[in-house]
Amino acid sequence: MEATFRALSKHGYNDLRMRDIGEEFEMSRTLIHYHYDGRHDLISALLEYVIEQYEGSVELDEGTDPVAELDVRIDQCLFGPEFDNDFGHWERMTVYHELFSQAQHNERHREVFNRHYETIRGSIEQVIERGIEEGVFRDVNVTDTAQLVTDLIHAARARRISLGHEDAPEQARRGIDEFVVSALLNPDYVLPSAMGRSQ
Amino acid sequence: MEATFRALSKHGYNDLRMRDIGEEFEMSRTLIHYHYDGRHDLISALLEYVIEQYEGSVELDEGTDPVAELDVRIDQCLFGPEFDNDFGHWERMTVYHELFSQAQHNERHREVFNRHYETIRGSIEQVIERGIEEGVFRDVNVTDTAQLVTDLIHAARARRISLGHEDAPEQARRGIDEFVVSALLNPDYVLPSAMGRSQ
Repeated sequence: MEATFRALSKHGYNDLRMRDIGEEFEMSRTLIHYHYDGRHDLISALLEYVIEQYEGSVELDEGTDPVAELDVRIDQCLFGPEFDNDFGHWERMTVYHELFSQAQHNERHREVFNRHYETIRGSIEQVIERGIEEGVFRDVNVTDTAQLVTDLIHAARARRISLGHEDAPEQARRGIDEFVVSALLNPDYVLPSAMGRSQ
Repeated sequence: MEATFRALSKHGYNDLRMRDIGEEFEMSRTLIHYHYDGRHDLISALLEYVIEQYEGSVELDEGTDPVAELDVRIDQCLFGPEFDNDFGHWERMTVYHELFSQAQHNERHREVFNRHYETIRGSIEQVIERGIEEGVFRDVNVTDTAQLVTDLIHAARARRISLGHEDAPEQARRGIDEFVVSALLNPDYVLPSAMGRSQ
């Protein structure tokens, strides 16, 4: 998958040939064809691989409060996890966003993206729901709110990649804090520790 | 430009040849080449043409209050103006978003998109600024707020086009109302008519 990624970064989606991928890790085309049913199948597998790295990369301590968990999840999507190998967050995201914009032409990619979108939005939904249950957050429309956060993250990344707005992710982060997180916070919520003191 | 648009919609950006464009309006390739310096030049002109239709399409009465003007501008970007010819808002936006995602590879497109982004964000900035001056809106960071609205519009359109989420624009509209417009409104603002009554 990393070899496919290298080949894709080098040649771009439209010019990518199976041969280019083979050259990246000296595997014969026959062997690649044995595992994958052509270029599109391989790219779908790559997309799933890239997405998996993001979905599985959030580590949280038990007992992390909803505000902190929401913070970590948003930052992870905007600024990315650490990667040990050649390609960083933005190189991966460039491939991701290029495939996203082509998903209208490819039913399988569209399905993969839709599953991913549901997972990301779902994880944000869960933490908002937990926050409402614990009284930390106000009682909002959970799906719409999680979708709004997901949309803001997506647009900021796309703007950085396509238009070169280097500060887009930081700007989106400020906007999410000012308009979404602050609106989520329940003004009547009393910290458990503060409750202990007041009794 | 409409012929170029038809050819582009039919063949897609990567497979488009000058000949396809010529076939759409029976103009010789020589004549097209006389006006445009190749496919990329023609596509840049098309992009400017599509964008111009959106920028020039908002009509406002004098004396429209800031809340109503913001509404009209957001709806225009999300749901589009009416078109008299063959292609509607979503067909135009599909071309727009496909070119947007390729703008990282094309310096001229990137410039056109950046100018357009500044115009759209600028028109939203202006109405927010006017709202603050008139006391209707709270004193927020105007640039960040306008960018947040622009990002939400962009992401909702991209999601509808790439992932087939038909309700994305309506959902974004609800989110903007709930989190942005309601946060903008100054709770201390008194309508001029109400002031008249109370005095």
